[in-house]
Formats: sequence, structure tokens, C-alpha cells
Amino acid sequence: MKVGILGGGQLARMLALAAQPLGIETLCLSATTDTSAKPVSPEIIRDDNSPTQLQDFTDQVDVITYENENIPLEIATKIAAHKNIYPGATALKVAQDRLLEKKCFTQLEINTPQYSAIESQQDLNDAVAEIGLPAVLKSRRFGYDGKGQFIIRTPSDIDQAWQTLGNQALILEQFIPFQTEVSIIATCDQQQQIKYYPLIENNHQHGILRLSRAPYENLQLQQQAQLYCQRLCTHLNYVGTLAIEFFLIDGQLLANEIAPRVHNSGHWTIEGADTSQFENHLRAICDLPLGSTASRGNSAMFNCLGELPPINDILAIPGAHFHDYHKQARPQRKLGHITLNTDDNTLFNSSFEQLCPLLGIDSIA
Amino acid sequence: MKVGILGGGQLARMLALAAQPLGIETLCLSATTDTSAKPVSPEIIRDDNSPTQLQDFTDQVDVITYENENIPLEIATKIAAHKNIYPGATALKVAQDRLLEKKCFTQLEINTPQYSAIESQQDLNDAVAEIGLPAVLKSRRFGYDGKGQFIIRTPSDIDQAWQTLGNQALILEQFIPFQTEVSIIATCDQQQQIKYYPLIENNHQHGILRLSRAPYENLQLQQQAQLYCQRLCTHLNYVGTLAIEFFLIDGQLLANEIAPRVHNSGHWTIEGADTSQFENHLRAICDLPLGSTASRGNSAMFNCLGELPPINDILAIPGAHFHDYHKQARPQRKLGHITLNTDDNTLFNSSFEQLCPLLGIDSIA
Repeated sequence: MKVGILGGGQLARMLALAAQPLGIETLCLSATTDTSAKPVSPEIIRDDNSPTQLQDFTDQVDVITYENENIPLEIATKIAAHKNIYPGATALKVAQDRLLEKKCFTQLEINTPQYSAIESQQDLNDAVAEIGLPAVLKSRRFGYDGKGQFIIRTPSDIDQAWQTLGNQALILEQFIPFQTEVSIIATCDQQQQIKYYPLIENNHQHGILRLSRAPYENLQLQQQAQLYCQRLCTHLNYVGTLAIEFFLIDGQLLANEIAPRVHNSGHWTIEGADTSQFENHLRAICDLPLGSTASRGNSAMFNCLGELPPINDILAIPGAHFHDYHKQARPQRKLGHITLNTDDNTLFNSSFEQLCPLLGIDSIA
Repeated sequence: MKVGILGGGQLARMLALAAQPLGIETLCLSATTDTSAKPVSPEIIRDDNSPTQLQDFTDQVDVITYENENIPLEIATKIAAHKNIYPGATALKVAQDRLLEKKCFTQLEINTPQYSAIESQQDLNDAVAEIGLPAVLKSRRFGYDGKGQFIIRTPSDIDQAWQTLGNQALILEQFIPFQTEVSIIATCDQQQQIKYYPLIENNHQHGILRLSRAPYENLQLQQQAQLYCQRLCTHLNYVGTLAIEFFLIDGQLLANEIAPRVHNSGHWTIEGADTSQFENHLRAICDLPLGSTASRGNSAMFNCLGELPPINDILAIPGAHFHDYHKQARPQRKLGHITLNTDDNTLFNSSFEQLCPLLGIDSIA
């Protein structure tokens, strides 16, 4: 079995590492040379001028997946004419457009912040009047890590928000002054059986995920999140690993967005779950039985942005595991992650306290 | 940091897979093309006619290790003149000669079966008279998986044993009608700090390891094995992962042999310990702090010989993990292993019962 992966970043890398023990080969279609995945997977460098490259790539593999939902929908459709691509085009279409995503939540009775489609400055004025302030103006497409967003706090911000983002399809959303963000990750196989990982609590800084902790133990919220997940998987005819991010406000989950792929908030599953999100994604798309998603002890995953911490210092901390993505350093770039995992709560707390300052997030915990 | 590995088999492969998240590069010096390690590590194909190849290889890496103790000692010595090779030449010399190994056990007061060096048929006759029958005649070097051994049960077997093996350096050992074989795996860092994995119970068929189960819980034996390990590591100035195999007879450990490397009976540590034997070996030879060797739940590791079982059947069994070595099938060749790992004893037993017939070892459990 050979899996084609659109992309060659750290998600492709961790998929390729998980594929090896299963005897699954990978082939990445990468945008650049010297990718994160290169040391662990053969790759083809994308040539948008080649009319046959995508077909050649598709011909070489048995099934195709992707590490980023911002691939053009027509590429997914072209592939789907010849080989299975998972998650499929329906999931991809919904996940790459914030408006379709929100409409999907509404249709499936999944609580979500108030929202309104924006196609003109008049739409924006009307929507602000209806939703109230503060509100967030967001591009419908290509947003990630807080990019393409503008928080409108007072009516005087409206003009600047429109000037900044107004050249594209937009959505205005109610601003949620959330205390907590949680996510759920699940994997759905080709028989529509779903395995759910426990809820994860996430902390962001400047729109970028810095820290994920799991399991976030709350039976009622876990069941609610799983129900939402199930509705989405069924509706989207979903195959593979899926993430849903929620705001948690007044004890209620409000769905923010979905990611139709393995997700940064699930990296702790490599050490912290019986089967990692990467392995289960591969099992699902290759039509193999899914593995247990039960958590093992307590986990915290810290993103390393812009630089990697000294490996000696990290590995000296009990329960810490190092994940270097083999990427060139650039400011705020995700270069790796550190997972703390242990069954021992006292040890967890003391190691957590040691890791935070090393990873520049002493203000979060 | 770049680690050179002498060999390209499954041990090199699993070392290379463990190296990636640590940001450690690997380079294998492989005997053949299309090796097990090839998909996950760059490699150089060995050319015994090249006078400069070993030097070129050594120049490209920061530290060197090996997956097989049967490398010529002069190669290790040549390397050691330029780069660190771990485990070092002393450990290698002892581990590759059964007589030196047994003498080392004797010197360190590590219980071992009675033995005698054999250099002539007269030596053999004398040794049989002294040790008694049954006894095992073994080649001092290049034995593995039961090869190079002859069990002498009656005096009439002596001639045939000599005819079969008499063209090489030999050792006669007391035959141990053992009920149980156990092994201990430990990793020693460059500051002579040692981390011990729990004892492992091993089952062989026709001299080849079929099944390892861990932890084998016996505090007294664990302490005894650790003490022996410590004496060996100190005596050999050891750096890296080490295995010692013991016969367990009348509640006593009798050391059989050591392996100066990661070991087949430790493959369960990938899922079943906080840090795998592969990662800890790399941490040790790269002078990084060692990780916890504590076990997580119960583990059983089954070797797949000659063929791999159907992956669908294996992954459908709760707690089962698949490890394909990317090797061509040949009768009795180790092509992969299956690890069963879970915290749940009831689940462990039921999954174990399901795995045994799939892996052709229904008669062992």
C-alpha cells in the first residue's frame, strides 16, 4: 500500500514516520525542496507548469490524503476521478470556507458563535448592527494561525477592518471572550465507525497554538463533543482523522472550526494515546481497523516557535519527549514540539513547571 | 548530530526511526542494497575492496554504533582512532567470543553454566568428563539464533559434534534444561549512569526468539539482574543499550550471553516503556540524558518469521501494533514483529489468545 500525501511539512513527516511500521509507503507532493518530510519519505517537488504531474503522482499511489485543507478543490476532484482521496471533497469544501463551515454547524445543530456572510461594506455595517460588538471579521478562506482576521471592537474600527480585508469573501463572527478553548480529535474509518480521543485544552498566543493538554476531563462536554463529531462525520461521509475546535463559554461548547486532517492539538497522541492520530489516520484511509484512542497518563504538548530549545535541557526533564521537524528556523515558525507524558501527576506538575520557562510560555499555565 | 550505524537491518531501521524526532541524522553502512533501513536512513553500500570507504564513512558522522556484534574488531579499532564508537571495543571483544564472555562472567561473579575451552578432540573428551552430559558444544564466534551449536546427549554424540564444529575455536557448556529464559535490557550513559528495563521472559523455537513478555515481575531476580548488569557496564566501560540473556533455573539466574546493542527481546519497549531501547541507545551514544525505562502496562512481542501475518487481522485485535521491517520474505527470516500492549490484564489475556494462533505459536503460551 502506498499513500500519496499532498504536502511535505511536519504533518506529512509524522504521517510518514507512522506509516513505516505498518509497511505503508508514502510519497509526498511537496511545494519546496528540503522539506520536513524529506528524510522519511520520497517526494516529488510540485511543478504547477506540468500538466501531467498530478496524474503521474496519482498513478503512483493507492490512496491520497493531505496535510493542509487549503488545496484547490479542483485538484481534489481531479484526483477523486482516479483514486480515493480522504477526507473526501465534501469535507474539504466545507473545511476550507468559514461560511460553509458555519452553515454546516447550523444545519447539524452544532452550537457556534453568531455569524453573517459579508460581501459588501453595507453587509458589514448591517451585520455589526445585528451581531453587536466586539466582533471578528475573517476571510472565508486561507486563514490559519490567526491570519486574515480583524477584531472590530468599536464602530470606528469598521472602516479599517474593511480596508484591511475587504478584497475577498468574508464572514463576520460574534467575538467570544473565551476563557478556554478545547478541541476534539476523532478518526472515522471506511465503515463509518468513529474512535474519539479525549478532549484537549488549548492555549494560543497571537493566534498560534502554544500548548495543548490532555485529557481535559469532563464527561458531559466529552459526550457533547463526540455527538457533534458524529454528526459531522456522518454528514460529510468522512474518512480519516478530524479535529473540531471549540470555544468553551459558560460551560457550553461553541464550534469554531474544523480541520479535515491530523491536527496540531493532537500531537500528544504519539506518546499519550494507545494509537496516535497519525497512525489512526493512515489506518482509516488504508481501510485497516482503527486502534484504541484511549489516553495514557497526562500529556502536555508545547509548540516550539522560531527556535528549538536545547535538547539536553529538555531530555533532562522527566517525561519529556523531543520532536524536531527538520525545518529551517524562521521567526514564529513551528520547528518542533515537546510532549510531556507521564502517569504520575506529581511528576507531571513538576516537569510542567520546568518546561514552561524553557519554552517561553511561563505566562500561560 | 549524525550517527553512523554499521549495518542496515531491522535494528538499524528502528534506530533510524527513533533518531528522527530527536533531530539526529543517521547514515548506515549496509552490506547489501534494498535494506530494511533504506526507507528511513541514507546508506552507503559496503565495498570491502575500497581502502578509503571506512574512513569516508567515519568522516561523515559524529559517532558510530552497530547493530551486530560480529563486526571485525579491527574495524572498531580503526574507527576508534578517529571517532567514538559505542559500545566500545572492549565490550565488542568480549561479546563476540563466548569464551571471553564466560570468563568475564566468572571474573565478575556472575553465575553462569559450567564451561570449558575446547581446542582439540582431547579437550572435548576431557571437558565432557568434567562437565558431564548433556552438554552443548558451541563455536566461540559468529553464533546467533542457535547456529553453530551441537547438543551432546550421550558419549556416542561426541565424534559427530567434533566432526560438525571442530574446525573452529569452541567452548563446551553445561546443558541447562531450563524452564524459563529471561533477559534484562539496560542503557548506560557516558557518565556511567544506568537505566534498567524490567526483566523480560523469552520463548524460543529452534533456537530463534519467538515471544517476549514484559514485565516479568520478580523483585529479587530484577535486583540480581541489575547488579550483574552494573558489574558488566562498569567493567566494560559501557555506553549504550545492553542485553543480558539468562537461564532461570531453580530460582537462580545463570548468564548465557550478552548483546552489546539493542536487542530483539526489547522491541516491546517501543510501545511498552516510557522510552524505547532504541531512543535510549541513541541518547546514550549522543551524550544526551536518558529517558525513563519504566514499563507501561503489559507487553508481549511476537517475532514474525518467514512471513508477515495479514495486517487486517492483527490490527483488529485490541492492543496489537504492527512492525513491518521492509524485508524480502525468506524461510525463518525475521520480517517483522507484533507488539501487544495494554494496561488492562483481561484485555491482554484475550488479545494474547487471539494473537498466538495467527503467529503460529499456539504451543508456547
